[in-house]
Amino acid sequence: MKILAFGEVMLRYTVPEHMLLEQSDTVLMSTVGTGVNLLGSLSHLGYETGMITQVPDNSLGKKAVADLRKLGIDDSLVGYTNGYLGSFFVELGHGSRPQRVTYQDRLSSSFCITGPDEYDFNSALEGVDYVHICGIALSLTKETRSAALELAKVAHKKGVKVCFDFNYRMGLNENNSHQMMKELYQEMLEYVDIAFGSKRDLTDLLDYAEIKESDLYAKFSADYDIEYFAGSNRKSDEHKRYFQGFIAHNGQLYKSKLREVKVLDRIGSGDAFASGVITGLIENWKYEDTLRFAVANSVLTQESLNDTPLFDKEDIFDYLACDGKNELIR
Amino acid sequence: MKILAFGEVMLRYTVPEHMLLEQSDTVLMSTVGTGVNLLGSLSHLGYETGMITQVPDNSLGKKAVADLRKLGIDDSLVGYTNGYLGSFFVELGHGSRPQRVTYQDRLSSSFCITGPDEYDFNSALEGVDYVHICGIALSLTKETRSAALELAKVAHKKGVKVCFDFNYRMGLNENNSHQMMKELYQEMLEYVDIAFGSKRDLTDLLDYAEIKESDLYAKFSADYDIEYFAGSNRKSDEHKRYFQGFIAHNGQLYKSKLREVKVLDRIGSGDAFASGVITGLIENWKYEDTLRFAVANSVLTQESLNDTPLFDKEDIFDYLACDGKNELIR
Amino acid sequence: MKILAFGEVMLRYTVPEHMLLEQSDTVLMSTVGTGVNLLGSLSHLGYETGMITQVPDNSLGKKAVADLRKLGIDDSLVGYTNGYLGSFFVELGHGSRPQRVTYQDRLSSSFCITGPDEYDFNSALEGVDYVHICGIALSLTKETRSAALELAKVAHKKGVKVCFDFNYRMGLNENNSHQMMKELYQEMLEYVDIAFGSKRDLTDLLDYAEIKESDLYAKFSADYDIEYFAGSNRKSDEHKRYFQGFIAHNGQLYKSKLREVKVLDRIGSGDAFASGVITGLIENWKYEDTLRFAVANSVLTQESLNDTPLFDKEDIFDYLACDGKNELIR
Amino acid sequence: MKILAFGEVMLRYTVPEHMLLEQSDTVLMSTVGTGVNLLGSLSHLGYETGMITQVPDNSLGKKAVADLRKLGIDDSLVGYTNGYLGSFFVELGHGSRPQRVTYQDRLSSSFCITGPDEYDFNSALEGVDYVHICGIALSLTKETRSAALELAKVAHKKGVKVCFDFNYRMGLNENNSHQMMKELYQEMLEYVDIAFGSKRDLTDLLDYAEIKESDLYAKFSADYDIEYFAGSNRKSDEHKRYFQGFIAHNGQLYKSKLREVKVLDRIGSGDAFASGVITGLIENWKYEDTLRFAVANSVLTQESLNDTPLFDKEDIFDYLACDGKNELIR
Amino acid sequence: MKILAFGEVMLRYTVPEHMLLEQSDTVLMSTVGTGVNLLGSLSHLGYETGMITQVPDNSLGKKAVADLRKLGIDDSLVGYTNGYLGSFFVELGHGSRPQRVTYQDRLSSSFCITGPDEYDFNSALEGVDYVHICGIALSLTKETRSAALELAKVAHKKGVKVCFDFNYRMGLNENNSHQMMKELYQEMLEYVDIAFGSKRDLTDLLDYAEIKESDLYAKFSADYDIEYFAGSNRKSDEHKRYFQGFIAHNGQLYKSKLREVKVLDRIGSGDAFASGVITGLIENWKYEDTLRFAVANSVLTQESLNDTPLFDKEDIFDYLACDGKNELIR
Amino acid sequence: MKILAFGEVMLRYTVPEHMLLEQSDTVLMSTVGTGVNLLGSLSHLGYETGMITQVPDNSLGKKAVADLRKLGIDDSLVGYTNGYLGSFFVELGHGSRPQRVTYQDRLSSSFCITGPDEYDFNSALEGVDYVHICGIALSLTKETRSAALELAKVAHKKGVKVCFDFNYRMGLNENNSHQMMKELYQEMLEYVDIAFGSKRDLTDLLDYAEIKESDLYAKFSADYDIEYFAGSNRKSDEHKRYFQGFIAHNGQLYKSKLREVKVLDRIGSGDAFASGVITGLIENWKYEDTLRFAVANSVLTQESLNDTPLFDKEDIFDYLACDGKNELIR
Repeated sequence: MKILAFGEVMLRYTVPEHMLLEQSDTVLMSTVGTGVNLLGSLSHLGYETGMITQVPDNSLGKKAVADLRKLGIDDSLVGYTNGYLGSFFVELGHGSRPQRVTYQDRLSSSFCITGPDEYDFNSALEGVDYVHICGIALSLTKETRSAALELAKVAHKKGVKVCFDFNYRMGLNENNSHQMMKELYQEMLEYVDIAFGSKRDLTDLLDYAEIKESDLYAKFSADYDIEYFAGSNRKSDEHKRYFQGFIAHNGQLYKSKLREVKVLDRIGSGDAFASGVITGLIENWKYEDTLRFAVANSVLTQESLNDTPLFDKEDIFDYLACDGKNELIR
Repeated sequence: MKILAFGEVMLRYTVPEHMLLEQSDTVLMSTVGTGVNLLGSLSHLGYETGMITQVPDNSLGKKAVADLRKLGIDDSLVGYTNGYLGSFFVELGHGSRPQRVTYQDRLSSSFCITGPDEYDFNSALEGVDYVHICGIALSLTKETRSAALELAKVAHKKGVKVCFDFNYRMGLNENNSHQMMKELYQEMLEYVDIAFGSKRDLTDLLDYAEIKESDLYAKFSADYDIEYFAGSNRKSDEHKRYFQGFIAHNGQLYKSKLREVKVLDRIGSGDAFASGVITGLIENWKYEDTLRFAVANSVLTQESLNDTPLFDKEDIFDYLACDGKNELIR
Repeated sequence: MKILAFGEVMLRYTVPEHMLLEQSDTVLMSTVGTGVNLLGSLSHLGYETGMITQVPDNSLGKKAVADLRKLGIDDSLVGYTNGYLGSFFVELGHGSRPQRVTYQDRLSSSFCITGPDEYDFNSALEGVDYVHICGIALSLTKETRSAALELAKVAHKKGVKVCFDFNYRMGLNENNSHQMMKELYQEMLEYVDIAFGSKRDLTDLLDYAEIKESDLYAKFSADYDIEYFAGSNRKSDEHKRYFQGFIAHNGQLYKSKLREVKVLDRIGSGDAFASGVITGLIENWKYEDTLRFAVANSVLTQESLNDTPLFDKEDIFDYLACDGKNELIR
Repeated sequence: MKILAFGEVMLRYTVPEHMLLEQSDTVLMSTVGTGVNLLGSLSHLGYETGMITQVPDNSLGKKAVADLRKLGIDDSLVGYTNGYLGSFFVELGHGSRPQRVTYQDRLSSSFCITGPDEYDFNSALEGVDYVHICGIALSLTKETRSAALELAKVAHKKGVKVCFDFNYRMGLNENNSHQMMKELYQEMLEYVDIAFGSKRDLTDLLDYAEIKESDLYAKFSADYDIEYFAGSNRKSDEHKRYFQGFIAHNGQLYKSKLREVKVLDRIGSGDAFASGVITGLIENWKYEDTLRFAVANSVLTQESLNDTPLFDKEDIFDYLACDGKNELIR
Repeated sequence: MKILAFGEVMLRYTVPEHMLLEQSDTVLMSTVGTGVNLLGSLSHLGYETGMITQVPDNSLGKKAVADLRKLGIDDSLVGYTNGYLGSFFVELGHGSRPQRVTYQDRLSSSFCITGPDEYDFNSALEGVDYVHICGIALSLTKETRSAALELAKVAHKKGVKVCFDFNYRMGLNENNSHQMMKELYQEMLEYVDIAFGSKRDLTDLLDYAEIKESDLYAKFSADYDIEYFAGSNRKSDEHKRYFQGFIAHNGQLYKSKLREVKVLDRIGSGDAFASGVITGLIENWKYEDTLRFAVANSVLTQESLNDTPLFDKEDIFDYLACDGKNELIR
Repeated sequence: MKILAFGEVMLRYTVPEHMLLEQSDTVLMSTVGTGVNLLGSLSHLGYETGMITQVPDNSLGKKAVADLRKLGIDDSLVGYTNGYLGSFFVELGHGSRPQRVTYQDRLSSSFCITGPDEYDFNSALEGVDYVHICGIALSLTKETRSAALELAKVAHKKGVKVCFDFNYRMGLNENNSHQMMKELYQEMLEYVDIAFGSKRDLTDLLDYAEIKESDLYAKFSADYDIEYFAGSNRKSDEHKRYFQGFIAHNGQLYKSKLREVKVLDRIGSGDAFASGVITGLIENWKYEDTLRFAVANSVLTQESLNDTPLFDKEDIFDYLACDGKNELIR
């Protein structure tokens, strides 16, 4: 079983000890990104993975690629080129104080300046079962848009399952018209087998009417011939946070229970859920089991520092077996 | 709008990773103090601020002053002299384990050995709207007592609004008689426009009778011609902490709702509340809005490391808009 | 009042910032072990303590012994020999994510390769009131088994009170038969005055029938002439943890109330409870008071980093006086 | 005496413990840049300074500006706008292993996207004695080029002394023609009073012939009506490094002695030299004394971590008094 | 070009800030070992590498393997089994104060308890050009001895070039007779093509007479049909250290010049030299060039923290081009 | 062999990574002082030691005493009282950049406010062979002066050897007249057997004429009946530092060779030398051997971080055996 992902490799700087940026001159670095998080998780869950991306040809790019390998992600499809690494800062929250994320420039990153001609998608996809494309590529640059669409097209043609995560972010689309973005997403969805997203993505981006959730997902799946539509959402009341996931398939909507989360670092919660869902699909688990597994992977990740889930199947099954109540493994 | 504060600049050593002093040979340093916290906050809230104080003329004093500037506090009224910097150690608590504070000597600090003659209060107060005086100055030394009273007198005469924080601490007054301290506070209050304190301060220090809270504050305000009397208090049940603030003005008592706080570091909670109140007064907000704002500033500060609030108005309005339930800003 | 302990000194590596081993190349080291934790606590509670053990004769062994002294434990009975230091890694948990412990080899440690002939128990026990033996010695090696039994025998003969902690761990006994271990424990119990353990230890290891708890403990105490049998247990519901202790004496069973614990690091909870119980026995406190004290010592320890309790009597009495609700001592 | 600087504020990430990027996930952050280093130094040397620049309007930009204030640099001319902060990584060298610098994107920085219309140079220069312009602005973007030239023009007109540092870097001019850059520098030099650069800058960039050094500098100064031309250079033999400075004025060439430097971090050596030279000019010192002072400031800075010199006049005079041989000040 | 190595993966703990173990409770972890260092270097030099070894099946073993991947070493031949990870502590030296290394137990490591039957050497060696065997395997356990010899035999038979590093250490052979060790090395050398060692190894372990160095190496190479015999040595005078390498081939002895080294951390100097030599052999460089390259790789590594060389060919060629005198690459 | 020391326990804050105070918000803490350094060293050299001093009765004082025990110093003569802990900051130097020390207040320390009546010197000195008194006590307060003199007197009377270190510091005596200090030292010297000091101490403090060094020391020793007068001095040329020691006894002057030192941290060099000399006296070594040993102890300490020497006899003999040229002990 081999899974590739296409997306940007990003440098994350985390301020330690729950401090604010203004309070600390030390930061912890990690190499993350939607694709990185997803593959890092799938690699820990036992599958062969590889990243299709571009990094700068300098000691920072090499560090980032070393980190990919450390996560268990094959680096043979990573290109070294001009440009930079996108990066962002994370100030962890505490109690009701919110976690804060500040982006540095990503449009001049090696990934963002590389168009489809620099990749050989056809040979990259040989022997591959799933390819994951992060929707952010559609928001970034002309180059990433064409590359993402080209990859989806080639994969679709070769019969490689295409996973696509909407990942639509307002902040990244201030200069892109609603119409343009909608059309790009629609074009992409023609090639997609498994989509990750939310109700908001369908109503706000694709202009679906606000109908009953199960009907909405069924209609969307039918419109674009999507096999699985899955996603997660978060609820909050004062000082408590909850997490829940769903899978829509074949007209049915499966929902997990709400699970309380003591969030340490919420970034990557969706990627952890997605890798859990893909695992369930690979293993042909029942949807209920897949949801429990995917939610557990996400909860464990949110109760850990950093984006990338590092849990293997045994970790998650042990966790589910005691319903998350065992505080010590020794 | 320009606000000055008179008080001691202190060095704080925080033991990292929630450890006890005995467990760690590394500490994090920060520059704090009632005035520093208040002005650091007001500077982040958009006002011009400046500190009237004294530090040692060595690399430690210079570091402390560099920290003041970093907080946005003007350092042109800081004197460099003999003496030392007062300091204290903080061991953070966890759950029901209490936070612990250990003081080193402050009576030999540059601030404590400097009397009114070393300051030029008259020119310092030119163009100033508010001056804040920390009541601890009344407990420390002969020099700080006279300097604080002299400053209050000059400010009062010049029509600069005088804010005064009772900040009465038993531990600092073991060698001072109740009568002496009461008289000093009474003398000070003659010049005060805005007082920060608690019910305890009125009954235990100023010997008011224990009457209904609103009547007590009204009587006290009338007695000393105090325009605003404000303060905060904390409540605890097992493993939960709450915070609440009040403003007494013109015979009325306004109280905020109790707000749960997931305390990371409780020091500075009162200073954060006070800077919120002063902001409301400057901006002429309704007292309810001022209290909500001041409590939010204090809650965010208690859910952060270190004493000094670093939040700007936008941070606090965003926080209030989602009632503190938004865990991530990206 | 002088208390000795016999057991292994272990090196603990804690991953900082709540990270997983895979996420960090920095670890915090500490010197721990059942005997170390117990004596470190008793030394902070005001008693003279000393450790009977062996460490390697190199800079690591010397560091460990320096740490013992730092904890207030006399090192004059520590031998320097061949072998190594046993060690383990701790990854702290968060919320429902479990704490994780990974052991390195301990069977080749200096302690594990040293038999009774290398110790002079007789003179070591001169003037000693209590000696504590950790049951793990019975699981480790031939040498530690004979040494532990020999020490218990000599102490019993000299009238030194023998405390024994079952500390039975499946993971350490995969190659030892149930029968062998049962007999070793039975032999040991002949010399024991005060035993620490759980219901499970009696039913699963010593093959007692599952009868009413108070009857079970009474029967066990009678069978082996045990003066006190004490222990603690933990309960969990989703995201909440509780701690409770008991003392069985003279046919009576005393139980503390369940106390909620915001666990920061649960290792050492039993050792903290045991040192509290021993303190109560030394001081002749009422059993209810002893339990409250011992539970408080354990809760404070679980709400701190690292195994070894560092609280003195004043810390614990202050804590009990405000029922753990005072967040700040200044 | 008031000195402004125009240039980019950059974020520097230093890998700790002399490690390579690939070896560490922790970095130390500092706020640097040619203008920042120069003003930080001048502020420690006792002068009033202020930075004219742009930073992003987010928590990273605010941190950078807090750092400017900490260095003693007035931030009232700093604009908050779109864009990002330029950044670079430093891996310190050791022995013959070279220090390594890796840049992230700076062309999309707030500074680089801001043209002259966003600044009010005329009022910024009121009451200013010196303004310093970093030549890198000529290499970066259309916006920074016009802003730098416009500022120089306005300053020249107002009689503010213009200091200009060539700072010409190949790496930043791969896409700029030699002719274009030469003309830009020539245009700038029309307004310059004090220029910092090297022989290479004159021969390679401005196409001067390779004549005797003193004649070359005299000719260059005459051509552009430069009052002072100053610079420094480094020499190396195996495992030893040396530093030397010169000032050319009025046809004369003054050179300091070669001074051995035990480099800890060589970045900022030129900025430290320049701030020393400017100090000498302000104070009207003899050129020999100015050179000794400027070289000492640079040597101390190279023997310290980070770019920005933090030494005051007393530090440097003490250092010169004992010829750098006093290892301890207590 | 594919190179495998067989040897132990070890955990290294480095005390930071040049401190002694007794002075610090923080250590930096890295994953090292002769094979790891050699392959990490060769992977950075551009070759495909893979490690044949065993690690414990727990989160520590997984971390170590993640580190291997980070270094660019393929982990598909790493087995997860019982046992532990060997480890050692490093206290860096300074000036004349020596670097100090303290070992924890390695005989119970996963590597040491695994014999040849647990490996499938035959298929592991498919498509492999070089295999490297660390001589320490001959000193450790019965299992590692048979595994190392079996691997050498299989490789020799398949025509894979066998590299062997004597790495003979007194400290590891206190319980092994000279005769036994000599015979084991002799048996191994029958299969070896390229040997790394020193004059001492030949005279003291293999009992060669002390003749002229070139004659000695020629005789040794002839006796065992060794194609290349290479090694390095260190010289010291007060406060200066030098490094030199040699290659003996076909009766000729090639020696590099003595190069001064400012040692930051000397461990791994021989492995860095060996990977440089292997590179020269792969690339068919002249022996003088190979020696310059190998010595440069070793000097750069000794002037870096940690054992494993992380330099690529460009780094080394740049270094050689300026003879190590360029302090900054930007 | 039992040695006591009387003196102040001080808290040292060291800025990490060779940074300046203004550059770092993290500091490393250690517990030091002349007596602490001397006894810490003697304890590592194999002797029984104990500190007579006073610390504050709070968690900082307890931490300091835990550190004493860690160093191997008996704490049973340490009193817990009012007052504080003296402290100082250390910024390490690099190359020609000097190390910098900044003191916080020590006159209000627990040690400084405690007079002779609070100590029971008579019973403290039972069974003691040597007592060491730091001359700084004569400069500090009335209380420390009388305590030091009283202790010397009692010891002298009981036949305990009195070691006295001049340790005269200008900075501590700005308010004390030369005459007063001279008389205090003269009074003390009546009781002294072994004095540590320098030529300067004799000429500048005691007003001896500047005669030939050997004659001067002989005269001084005769005047006060001093058995041994020993000391060390430092020489510097550009970028090199040297260390040398002497012992004057019975009219003879013994001098060690100058030894180059690569200083990492020079504080404590004299204490390390003194503990080496005392060791030689205890062991009755030849003076040449004693000097070599004492100089080696001091060089190793200066090439380490922190004041307190942590070397045992084996470390020093090994170091001397290879003349400090062995870079690695493994």
